[in-house]
Amino acid sequence: MSNRFSKTPEPPYYAVIFTNQLSAEDEGYEAMGDKMFELALEQPGCLGAESTRDNTGLGITVSYWADEEALSTWKANAKHLVAQNMGIEKWYSHYELRVAKVERAYSGPKGRSVK
Amino acid sequence: MSNRFSKTPEPPYYAVIFTNQLSAEDEGYEAMGDKMFELALEQPGCLGAESTRDNTGLGITVSYWADEEALSTWKANAKHLVAQNMGIEKWYSHYELRVAKVERAYSGPKGRSVK
Repeated sequence: MSNRFSKTPEPPYYAVIFTNQLSAEDEGYEAMGDKMFELALEQPGCLGAESTRDNTGLGITVSYWADEEALSTWKANAKHLVAQNMGIEKWYSHYELRVAKVERAYSGPKGRSVK
Repeated sequence: MSNRFSKTPEPPYYAVIFTNQLSAEDEGYEAMGDKMFELALEQPGCLGAESTRDNTGLGITVSYWADEEALSTWKANAKHLVAQNMGIEKWYSHYELRVAKVERAYSGPKGRSVK
């Protein structure tokens, strides 16, 4: 269970927030999605990734990156480009992708208390 | 379907990335979670929120905020504090909360092309 959380270092670092809705025509998506998730984690500068999807096909994947260079290298990765095009042409009915700089982070329940 | 995506303005703005694992003891969580989601959206400076959870109880909710002030006002909201404490004491077996500044954003599939 806990290995679905990323053990990220102290901020700052980057987060790519990818919210996406799978279309009905999602053949081949799961295998490719799993492969891209593993491939991302192998990239230099990738600090981790967290991903979940409900039974309506709405998914959120957040990947974490050391710096902008790591991010742009991953964006241009040849296997990833193939997957991106499949996503655009076939799998996703809609998506929002946001690049953000993480400024602070907390873990819990034990690492945090609310007064 | 598309109303589960947030129509956020041009960056910069803030994102709160909340990845959480529900524990087995999740009684009352769903009602409270729904209520907090709606309450967050009513807050001044809240730009939207996106949320999904798989059948293992791993959820990711990303809420979007105009500025730091809106964020800290929401963090200190009385009803939200009650929910935060319930989450810490009972509902979440683990969570990671990250505060990030969104620098750029893309929508698709039509709003973006990959060369």
